Amino acid sequence: MSYNFGVKDLSMSLLNAEYAVRGKVPTRAGEIQKILDKGNNQDGKSYPFTELTEANIGNPQTFGQPPISFFRQVLSGILNPDLIEEGAFKNQDVVNRVKFYQKNIKGNVGAYTNSLGYEFVRQSIANFIAKRDNLPVEKDLTNYMTLDGASQGVHLIMNAFVAHSSDGVMVPIPQYPLYSAAIALKGGQQVPYYLDEENQWQCSMEELERAYTEAKSRKINPKILVVINPGNPCGNILTEETIKKFIKFAYDKKMIIIADEVYQTNIYNKQKKFHSFKKIQASLEAPYNKGELFSVHSTSKGILGECGIRGGYMEMINVDPEVKAQLVKLKSINLCSNTTGQLMTELMCNPPSEDNGASQESIKKYNQEVEDLFNGLLSRINTVNKYLNSLKNIKSQDSEGAMYVFPQVILSKKAIEAAKKEGQSPDLFYCLNVLENTGLVIVPGSGFGQVDGTYHFRITNLIRPESKLEDTLKRFKEYNEKFHQQYE
Amino acid sequence: MSYNFGVKDLSMSLLNAEYAVRGKVPTRAGEIQKILDKGNNQDGKSYPFTELTEANIGNPQTFGQPPISFFRQVLSGILNPDLIEEGAFKNQDVVNRVKFYQKNIKGNVGAYTNSLGYEFVRQSIANFIAKRDNLPVEKDLTNYMTLDGASQGVHLIMNAFVAHSSDGVMVPIPQYPLYSAAIALKGGQQVPYYLDEENQWQCSMEELERAYTEAKSRKINPKILVVINPGNPCGNILTEETIKKFIKFAYDKKMIIIADEVYQTNIYNKQKKFHSFKKIQASLEAPYNKGELFSVHSTSKGILGECGIRGGYMEMINVDPEVKAQLVKLKSINLCSNTTGQLMTELMCNPPSEDNGASQESIKKYNQEVEDLFNGLLSRINTVNKYLNSLKNIKSQDSEGAMYVFPQVILSKKAIEAAKKEGQSPDLFYCLNVLENTGLVIVPGSGFGQVDGTYHFRITNLIRPESKLEDTLKRFKEYNEKFHQQYE
Repeated sequence: MSYNFGVKDLSMSLLNAEYAVRGKVPTRAGEIQKILDKGNNQDGKSYPFTELTEANIGNPQTFGQPPISFFRQVLSGILNPDLIEEGAFKNQDVVNRVKFYQKNIKGNVGAYTNSLGYEFVRQSIANFIAKRDNLPVEKDLTNYMTLDGASQGVHLIMNAFVAHSSDGVMVPIPQYPLYSAAIALKGGQQVPYYLDEENQWQCSMEELERAYTEAKSRKINPKILVVINPGNPCGNILTEETIKKFIKFAYDKKMIIIADEVYQTNIYNKQKKFHSFKKIQASLEAPYNKGELFSVHSTSKGILGECGIRGGYMEMINVDPEVKAQLVKLKSINLCSNTTGQLMTELMCNPPSEDNGASQESIKKYNQEVEDLFNGLLSRINTVNKYLNSLKNIKSQDSEGAMYVFPQVILSKKAIEAAKKEGQSPDLFYCLNVLENTGLVIVPGSGFGQVDGTYHFRITNLIRPESKLEDTLKRFKEYNEKFHQQYE
Repeated sequence: MSYNFGVKDLSMSLLNAEYAVRGKVPTRAGEIQKILDKGNNQDGKSYPFTELTEANIGNPQTFGQPPISFFRQVLSGILNPDLIEEGAFKNQDVVNRVKFYQKNIKGNVGAYTNSLGYEFVRQSIANFIAKRDNLPVEKDLTNYMTLDGASQGVHLIMNAFVAHSSDGVMVPIPQYPLYSAAIALKGGQQVPYYLDEENQWQCSMEELERAYTEAKSRKINPKILVVINPGNPCGNILTEETIKKFIKFAYDKKMIIIADEVYQTNIYNKQKKFHSFKKIQASLEAPYNKGELFSVHSTSKGILGECGIRGGYMEMINVDPEVKAQLVKLKSINLCSNTTGQLMTELMCNPPSEDNGASQESIKKYNQEVEDLFNGLLSRINTVNKYLNSLKNIKSQDSEGAMYVFPQVILSKKAIEAAKKEGQSPDLFYCLNVLENTGLVIVPGSGFGQVDGTYHFRITNLIRPESKLEDTLKRFKEYNEKFHQQYE
């Protein structure tokens, strides 16, 4: 078969973009899955496992994490309002919420909404943020935009602000590969600043300055500072002091900040707290309280884990109205975010509570479900942290937040040479070996970025139930031992 | 308030992109809506109407067009499976479909799916197309990708194939402004080919050749040929002969085709039929059956009108696997399409029928609902066509398909001068006057493109019920008369 168009005809920016989370390891995992589906021993292959364990992606519900029941009841009611008339819901709070939506939605959820999202959803977002940060409720609802997942907001900002090929985006390394991909797609320059592994993946101002100065010396114009807090993939949590310094740094250098705060409720270290960039910025003296700040949040992470629904929002703080109008135009070219995701966002921001007059029963049930989900995540991050600390040639900083740990694996010369022979980076070689021998899917550190000559991988805390997690980690531990013996 | 960043700091490609469907007229409509909401006569303004009538956008459910009940029942059941256990659904076919989904979905609809979409959804898409085109079922399911609305597919193709600023995209004029916007965002060149208004908005090969040659003479490299069939905004339907010529033209010139076929079920002229580009291409002799073809379809249009759900798919025909891999990578950077939209797509492709063992009752009910919806659209397009033909200084080609009519309005010198005084294009001036005086929202032709010196607008056939449509058109007719008298 011959084709008129080949890879050579495609945009270089697309060819340059990489997205490791769905890269070589998951691709190979997909192939193995097909073999397992057909029954093991097919194609002469036989695996010492009967199923894959996908710890490569923050996808809680694939392991059976249950959704919040109230949220799903409301969504089913708004999609199929006959259920309300038929009395399918015993809980009057569900009925009330559906009726509230019906009152505020013109036509039906099958109609396009305002490009920014339903106004009543944006009102709930504004209320949620005000309550979270103990700040007055923002009156200008054009500061909020619903999203099909937080990624969409990041692409929007890159599309708008990366104006020249010399425009730079400062990105923490290790980073979530959405950032490098979005920058590559837009043809901008990634300006890496390194998190300090020895210091629990915190960031120093010296490193930020170094990265900035180095970029300037290469005629790059750093325009955007990306922060991920809590961190993906490192699970680090930024302190109030660090956030203040970040904000002042960005303002002094005339940069906008993208605060990726999708893991704001995933805080496992009880000594630590989530501080929003918005709240900290508002607490600073002028002019440092006036910087351009974009914060994204999502229904995919946190306690909900509603990844497939594609919900989320972006808040735009201190943004020139004319710039906002351009962002709205860009959003409107795709018409609007999906309405199920918009309503899931409303529910996340406005769960059953006394503020909205929900019954004690609904509030109690919701709180119990959230507590159970949180405790599960907490218990499993502790298990993962503990295991990783006991593994041969693995050096791990305990994860304090988000859904991941990013341990370092110490590879011998022999292992590195074996990788080279296969044409693979050493961390990819390690992760592929783990996959082929245990069925555990983890992502090599090279997709996130790491200090040259170091090798890492990302693993989630989402495998459940706990017994399955323990089994998986035990198999992993055994194989890791074997691997290092083999290449000693 | 001062800002570090203004419009001057944004990407030129964003500033250059226009999106008329949500442009100046709808923006003004939004302001009027706020005044109406507060009660008329606010701010010294008083309008001779109590509500707006939004005929500017293909958004059927905003006027109360009902969804297909089976589809919504299934979606409510998969989002909230407790309903199944509680026996909320009398219809066993709903239960069966939900169980079929549960069997095929790993975890829950709250989990991310494969980047291309659920495999079983892609199987249903493949079956649907095979049945529609009377062709064998495509075996390679990586030829299908679910989308959050067809627009997403168009952006993907532009992002991949517009590689240089000299790369051209041939677009029918008038066009759906998504295309000009997507090309501008990617920094490519729009190569307009004009549809022939006098000839029911058909396209001649001479015009296609002219546009191509003219582009080449300006050192533009036309790489993509966009066709919209049935047409948006003109409501034209391409003949089999024209489609054959398009395909041969694209192949000979080494261009890929984007076939925007989202209105494939909106065919109102009983003498005409929808022919898919895929089917016609497959019927051609080699090598013309081997061209690269991308076809998009959506759950937003057709009979469903499920715009807010954001569902749809793209089929990739005769595409180099390496190119496909790049498109999959691009799609995967946004993780996956929303699952509600994916399942709505499955339902659209696989409604209750004997093929899937649905009961006669379900089949009959579904068919009746589709028939009622179609007849409503048909009756209303006839009403709109009829009225437009009776309007002073309006020259309209009857719409045969899609959801729009694109009539020409003959404006006097005096009107054109008045527009100039306001700094508005004459068609914008006309549409804004219609809005302020009747509450009817229509989009000026300049957003879609039109022959210089001609003026048009786009109006939908979605206003319902019929009595409201008649009222609106009557008011419009009266005001149109007045407008032309005023500027005689």
